Amino acid sequence: MEFSALLTSAGINIGVCVLFLSLYSILRKQPHNFSVYFGRRLAEEKFQRQDDYFSFERLLPTAGWIVKAYWCTEEEIRQVAGLDSVVFLRLFIFSIRIFSITSLVCIFGVLPVNYHGKEMTHNHIPAESLNVFTIANIIEESRKLSVHCIALYIITISACILLYNEYKYISRKRLAHITGGPPNPSQFTVLLRSIPRSDNELLDDTIRNFFVNYHGSSYLSHQVILRRGHFQRFVDRAEKAYRKFVSVRRSMSERNGRSSMSRCGVCGVRASSFQVYRNKFIEAKKADLTNPEVVNAQKNCPGALVFFKTRYAAVVASRVLQSSNPMLWVTDLAPEPRDVYWSNLWIPYKQIWLRKLATLAASVVFMFVFIVPVAFVQSMMQLEQLKRMFPSLRGLLNKSFFARVVTGYLPSVVLLLSLYTVPPLMMLFSSIEGSISRSGRKRSACLKIMVFTIWNVFFVNVLSGSVLNQLNVFTRPKDMPTMLAELVPKQATFFITYVLTSGWASLCSEILQVYNLVYNFFSKCICCCQQNTEYVYSFPYHTEVPKVLMFNLLGFAFAIMAPLILPFLLVYFCLGYLVYRNQILNVYYPKYEMGGKLWPIMHNTIVFSLVLMQVIALGVFTIKKSPVASGFTILLLVGTILFNEYCRHRFSRIFEAYSAQDVIELDRDDEQSGRMQEIHQHLQDAYSQTTPGEGSSRSGGQVPIEMILEDPAQDASESSQELCDTVQEMSDAIHEHNISEEGKAHSV
Amino acid sequence: MEFSALLTSAGINIGVCVLFLSLYSILRKQPHNFSVYFGRRLAEEKFQRQDDYFSFERLLPTAGWIVKAYWCTEEEIRQVAGLDSVVFLRLFIFSIRIFSITSLVCIFGVLPVNYHGKEMTHNHIPAESLNVFTIANIIEESRKLSVHCIALYIITISACILLYNEYKYISRKRLAHITGGPPNPSQFTVLLRSIPRSDNELLDDTIRNFFVNYHGSSYLSHQVILRRGHFQRFVDRAEKAYRKFVSVRRSMSERNGRSSMSRCGVCGVRASSFQVYRNKFIEAKKADLTNPEVVNAQKNCPGALVFFKTRYAAVVASRVLQSSNPMLWVTDLAPEPRDVYWSNLWIPYKQIWLRKLATLAASVVFMFVFIVPVAFVQSMMQLEQLKRMFPSLRGLLNKSFFARVVTGYLPSVVLLLSLYTVPPLMMLFSSIEGSISRSGRKRSACLKIMVFTIWNVFFVNVLSGSVLNQLNVFTRPKDMPTMLAELVPKQATFFITYVLTSGWASLCSEILQVYNLVYNFFSKCICCCQQNTEYVYSFPYHTEVPKVLMFNLLGFAFAIMAPLILPFLLVYFCLGYLVYRNQILNVYYPKYEMGGKLWPIMHNTIVFSLVLMQVIALGVFTIKKSPVASGFTILLLVGTILFNEYCRHRFSRIFEAYSAQDVIELDRDDEQSGRMQEIHQHLQDAYSQTTPGEGSSRSGGQVPIEMILEDPAQDASESSQELCDTVQEMSDAIHEHNISEEGKAHSV
Repeated sequence: MEFSALLTSAGINIGVCVLFLSLYSILRKQPHNFSVYFGRRLAEEKFQRQDDYFSFERLLPTAGWIVKAYWCTEEEIRQVAGLDSVVFLRLFIFSIRIFSITSLVCIFGVLPVNYHGKEMTHNHIPAESLNVFTIANIIEESRKLSVHCIALYIITISACILLYNEYKYISRKRLAHITGGPPNPSQFTVLLRSIPRSDNELLDDTIRNFFVNYHGSSYLSHQVILRRGHFQRFVDRAEKAYRKFVSVRRSMSERNGRSSMSRCGVCGVRASSFQVYRNKFIEAKKADLTNPEVVNAQKNCPGALVFFKTRYAAVVASRVLQSSNPMLWVTDLAPEPRDVYWSNLWIPYKQIWLRKLATLAASVVFMFVFIVPVAFVQSMMQLEQLKRMFPSLRGLLNKSFFARVVTGYLPSVVLLLSLYTVPPLMMLFSSIEGSISRSGRKRSACLKIMVFTIWNVFFVNVLSGSVLNQLNVFTRPKDMPTMLAELVPKQATFFITYVLTSGWASLCSEILQVYNLVYNFFSKCICCCQQNTEYVYSFPYHTEVPKVLMFNLLGFAFAIMAPLILPFLLVYFCLGYLVYRNQILNVYYPKYEMGGKLWPIMHNTIVFSLVLMQVIALGVFTIKKSPVASGFTILLLVGTILFNEYCRHRFSRIFEAYSAQDVIELDRDDEQSGRMQEIHQHLQDAYSQTTPGEGSSRSGGQVPIEMILEDPAQDASESSQELCDTVQEMSDAIHEHNISEEGKAHSV
Repeated sequence: MEFSALLTSAGINIGVCVLFLSLYSILRKQPHNFSVYFGRRLAEEKFQRQDDYFSFERLLPTAGWIVKAYWCTEEEIRQVAGLDSVVFLRLFIFSIRIFSITSLVCIFGVLPVNYHGKEMTHNHIPAESLNVFTIANIIEESRKLSVHCIALYIITISACILLYNEYKYISRKRLAHITGGPPNPSQFTVLLRSIPRSDNELLDDTIRNFFVNYHGSSYLSHQVILRRGHFQRFVDRAEKAYRKFVSVRRSMSERNGRSSMSRCGVCGVRASSFQVYRNKFIEAKKADLTNPEVVNAQKNCPGALVFFKTRYAAVVASRVLQSSNPMLWVTDLAPEPRDVYWSNLWIPYKQIWLRKLATLAASVVFMFVFIVPVAFVQSMMQLEQLKRMFPSLRGLLNKSFFARVVTGYLPSVVLLLSLYTVPPLMMLFSSIEGSISRSGRKRSACLKIMVFTIWNVFFVNVLSGSVLNQLNVFTRPKDMPTMLAELVPKQATFFITYVLTSGWASLCSEILQVYNLVYNFFSKCICCCQQNTEYVYSFPYHTEVPKVLMFNLLGFAFAIMAPLILPFLLVYFCLGYLVYRNQILNVYYPKYEMGGKLWPIMHNTIVFSLVLMQVIALGVFTIKKSPVASGFTILLLVGTILFNEYCRHRFSRIFEAYSAQDVIELDRDDEQSGRMQEIHQHLQDAYSQTTPGEGSSRSGGQVPIEMILEDPAQDASESSQELCDTVQEMSDAIHEHNISEEGKAHSV
């Protein structure tokens, strides 16, 4: 590819970006799109609904949103969107910082050296092949390689310093988040699994006896996790029907001109009234050991939530091995109430190790099967091959502009589209794995998608571009550096266009929310549906984090090989920073909090990228016969690994466990302020078990009832009044049903 | 090599074994060798010293020791030699069981199939090449391979059942060991490292404040670990001199006919009197914050031992992260008093991760450097090459018998000798690593030596026998199975002789204790020294466990490839079982207890051996073009890995942590029986810090004071009377010295 083809590609993309951003700034002003672009604000009801008057200004693109996104402080973002958003944005800040330094060093230091690496007559720059700007242009045994080595040192050392500071900063933020927030029921709760059964004792008694016996001074109460029976399913359906009814009534009353504002906040329901009934039902049933259904339910019981009087007691119970059989009385700190993944709690603990192994195997198999579409993309890069495959297109392909579009743009679009199938599948794998929390599932999926992306986007593309069979290459780890060193510079072109298309375009698609926009348009304007419009999604960390980290990896891998990629990346990171800030502020609503646990994954991946950069450089220096540079690179490699080990020892446990010092201080504060009693009272209500698909959950009456979708909306605060009014009648009806059923059972 | 050469080798070795065992049975009856062959019994003083009368019987070889060793029950062994010895002997029992099954299956099932694998005219058996008995004799696409596949299944499944039962049995033994033994001070003690310094507070106060604040209800006291200053060194030297003096007096009084029996057991010294003084000295000094020496000592303080009121509190404190900075207030359960490796406690905690990485790197480098002698051994196997290398030996080598000895016997002797350099070096690495306990160091060395042995004995020998460069082979993991499948059967000869020489001979050398015998002979009969004769060594698990596991691995690897190895191995395991039982009962004295923690290492290695066997079989089936057998082998491979994972989840945590249930029950028992007060009083005395080389330690007045050597002897119980008598005078003298020094310091 020539430099001019690159410029064409860049031109197309800049045009597309400007177009999309302008479109966004217009679309966001249209009131019927508010639910797409201001989901979070609508969910929090802070957003003042503008009246639907028409003004000419609404059709003009403006840049106000950029200013708003930029000037928002980190503390504000933390308050509205949680610590995870802050961590995600810190990744952008880190990327911008390190790639500013890298760009400076590589564009002004390495690029001229590459360009003048060989004695040759240069064309004028637009007609120059891109290979001239890569390290491939430098002759063997050249002294100029010392420039690359120095650049490598500068990049690695600055990256390590920045990484260390970020880790420290985020650790501090996490500690502040743990100690600063309102009392969290999850800190008092331990999830107990694999309870040994005894035939002549109630499950409740077994649990109570064990904890009173061994944790008597700190045990508060417990709540058994039960698979739902027939009657529970009936209650669930009743609740669902009732919710629909409320929703319809609300929309009708809205049409009657009654403001939706007037009905909220009057009555805060602490626990779903249906749940209260459901719990009563369980209580009533489970005391009866002669009932075979109860015995059966006890046998199927996968675990319990155990509440402790203090946070410290819960931490201790979760850390210490309870029984001399490690497969019994397994304790873990419980996830937050909103974060619990109920359907996975029903998985017997003994299956979990098997499920983990199976999903690991499945992910690896999928990773290798996916090579097929990637190889197809790579074949599209070769114009001649394309002409052979599609003879009918020969005429079109011979036109210069079209050929440029096909070779420079289309392959990465195809790759991008095929990559869209990955997140749902990996999410499924992570569900099957048996994670007890939604956040854990998302983190696990994030990790899987990242490994997948790095393997399939970077390695397979780099290696399948060569004549060698890519699988054979991976069976010889020793030859990897030289292999990569030969192949990586050759693939620079592809990855520059990948940044342009996949990177920039994904940002545009992110901000436009194309899918939601279209869905909203159809449902509102064509089907005239009013309900189902206010779904608020939580931030898709599992797709966005791997994407950003992938661009980091590309940046490091190509920094000294083909520095031309760096300006494009820098633009991506700056634009991404603004776009994601805007999205976090306006669109996504945080359903649960991971407490910054994504950072260790990010840190490790960035260190891996640094190591990869050094390994490739090592290969290049070996090929170019520069032993001194190779030696210094090995030194740097060892240093980087040591740095990572140090960070792991210094910080990683902060993200895994609570420290005694912190939780004891928190406990003392609560005890002295007398809040402890209140917290204990709320603990039992905090966790309410419903069906997996209908994950209704709340914490302390603050958080909205979530709805039917996996990423459900918050709409119940408006309908809480109706709930309070009607639930009593419903409950009575159900109670009668129950009594009649019991009567039947007795008569049988 | 022909079958007759193998018989020659076996003949030589059987002869040598019988000779050595007869020699042993004579030597052990000579009174001046009692210190060599009955070290443990002498140390425990239970052994009735026979009078030095001469009888003819003393010169006759007898087999009484075998009977004694065989009839001793496991419980007796546990009582005299600890749980670790039992675990070590269980390894032999497991090996005998599994290789009995394997021998049955392979000798009667696989061997005839191999022998008749090809249409060929057989010579009479002695002149037959050994290759005829290996799987190499089977033609491609043969249906006979299904026999091998079935044998593989039988071996693997029986091994898994036996392994599971052993793991369960040993877990139960370990739990009984924890709950059944006398109160152990280590269960109440937490080793605290990386204490944050404050300039205006005493270190003692910092520790006390922290634990009173956060573990107030369970904190008992603590003991700071201090590097010794000048004065402490003076006390150490005084103690050393005094001990020498006592020892000389004792030997003199012995010559005067006074029985050594009459002086022991009268006065049990609870803590070394020198140590009492030393502790007093530290107490006196450390309260003075204006003294720069004290401030300096505080800065250098690497940690402290913190004592808790209950076992459960200690377990909790060791499991929970103490501070929000994971590099501060690091807590671990302390090792047993005898087991503490004091000189490593002085290593700053921040260095430990670095030391671990460095020793890991050093071990790996050493592993690869060691290929040189192994390659030399391999070259000796090729007779022609040998003739080229040493032309002067050509005449000798042409003689048939001598050639057989050289090719069949010498190579493994050279390998054996060069392997003797490994354990001390790996032990050094493990010391540098920073393990806080002697047992931890030994376990770490054991693991290192095992990996080393498997790599250098098995893999390098297998691979360097081929024309391929062995390093190149290892860079292509995918080709490993077929590579191994081609090479392993060819090396069967070498490994059969290796079992004969290294295995059988090492047992003979073990039971004869050649080195100690010679040393004892020289020191007693030639130098006429009386002291230093009663050193009792602790069992060298770090050299013996890898050896036995290596033979297990060889057994599995060659079971279906070359079943001829199995009878020799079975003899090795049976003989080894008797020999080690005898040695454990008579020779070695357990200095510390690992509580069976060696078993997980053994289990994992055996599973690795099984997997290796399956991988090699997979390669063979691939080469011989038997897809059905390959498929079934892959199934078996997956099953074996799943089995290992299950065992890991089911058992491994038992070997890592104490369970709440167990320790709370123990605490309650002690509280109810009123022993708790007594235990608390002894805790402070239990750990006494001395210089690293002179590791003086005791627990509860039962255990002898250890001496100067790394594996020191127990002799102090005899001299305790003198110690009590004289220490008062010494102590007074030192006290005066101290006062005069303090006077000087004040006047300055």
